Amino acid sequence: MDIYIALVHHPVLNRAGDVVTTAVTNIDIHDLARAARTYGVAGYFLVTPIEQQRAMVSRIAAHWQGGGGAALHPLRADALSLVRVAATLDEAERAIAGPDGPRPLRVGTSAWRHSTTVGYDALRERLTTRPEGSAALLLFGTGWGLTAETLAECEAVLPPIEAIPGRAAYNHLSVRSAAAIILDRLLGARNETLPGVDR
Amino acid sequence: MDIYIALVHHPVLNRAGDVVTTAVTNIDIHDLARAARTYGVAGYFLVTPIEQQRAMVSRIAAHWQGGGGAALHPLRADALSLVRVAATLDEAERAIAGPDGPRPLRVGTSAWRHSTTVGYDALRERLTTRPEGSAALLLFGTGWGLTAETLAECEAVLPPIEAIPGRAAYNHLSVRSAAAIILDRLLGARNETLPGVDR
Repeated sequence: MDIYIALVHHPVLNRAGDVVTTAVTNIDIHDLARAARTYGVAGYFLVTPIEQQRAMVSRIAAHWQGGGGAALHPLRADALSLVRVAATLDEAERAIAGPDGPRPLRVGTSAWRHSTTVGYDALRERLTTRPEGSAALLLFGTGWGLTAETLAECEAVLPPIEAIPGRAAYNHLSVRSAAAIILDRLLGARNETLPGVDR
Repeated sequence: MDIYIALVHHPVLNRAGDVVTTAVTNIDIHDLARAARTYGVAGYFLVTPIEQQRAMVSRIAAHWQGGGGAALHPLRADALSLVRVAATLDEAERAIAGPDGPRPLRVGTSAWRHSTTVGYDALRERLTTRPEGSAALLLFGTGWGLTAETLAECEAVLPPIEAIPGRAAYNHLSVRSAAAIILDRLLGARNETLPGVDR
């Protein structure tokens, strides 16, 4: 089953709990694309309502895949080939589903626990029992994370990254670090290979 | 046992295999400090022979910990409090050891396997059997990684991050992503709590 990831720039929370739009950064484009490529992710959506920023992402991705960029740095071109843009999560999901396909399973990530929080083992199990041809979309929130509304619309939410059991958790990993860790925990080779996971 | 990390800017390799010095970046200071704080790392050394860049790192760390920065963003101040600078790895190790203490166990990371490569379980085992008061220093290379000489001086080297067993590995994670994944694999809560690991 294809796993997609989305880096959400709106709606997300700021430090004060307001719903805001964050700016797309070049380092997020590259780091998450490289992580996505490493873990066999089928596509990496940067979700932002700001058209100029979607255009910027597309230009950056095209630059690294164009003749000069791809020849100079094929590994970077390979990663950037996964990058896609969408104005909303809904648009990303429709792009994944195609004209006739089912919407992907929406999986949230959060620094907190929710009623729909499921562990990595349980999620992996759920992914293997999905019908052939279906997909999952893993959401990462910039700023101070995904909104409650977005998380409520997820069929599952992964648990917060707890580094040290029983200790007061320091809960302020960068989204780049968190995304890499979550991809590794979900898809990394230490675990049994998921039947049906493409790549 | 205290675990330290070092982000090495020299000596490291460039794409052509030459030994170079890379530039310190602000995002590396912050991302790895936040990951270090999350996983209970005792200190985060940025190693560069360039004095002006060591000074820059110290200024950035001080800024976030100073009155205004710490009040505005205590979580960031907390992470940045781990940041230290050193001109060489040897200097970092002497700082960790103190005037009379033993040098820390030097652990390398690499995108390739080496004769001294040990798995995470084996390394964790080795760490728990170290004498009280000793430490370990985990090295991350910028650019295209640590030199063969540096790796040869490591008592152990962690294996490359293999995302998908049996597949041709895409071996181009950013150092930020790799460091987060490695810290999680080594110290993350899914594993048994290491007796004696402080914090």
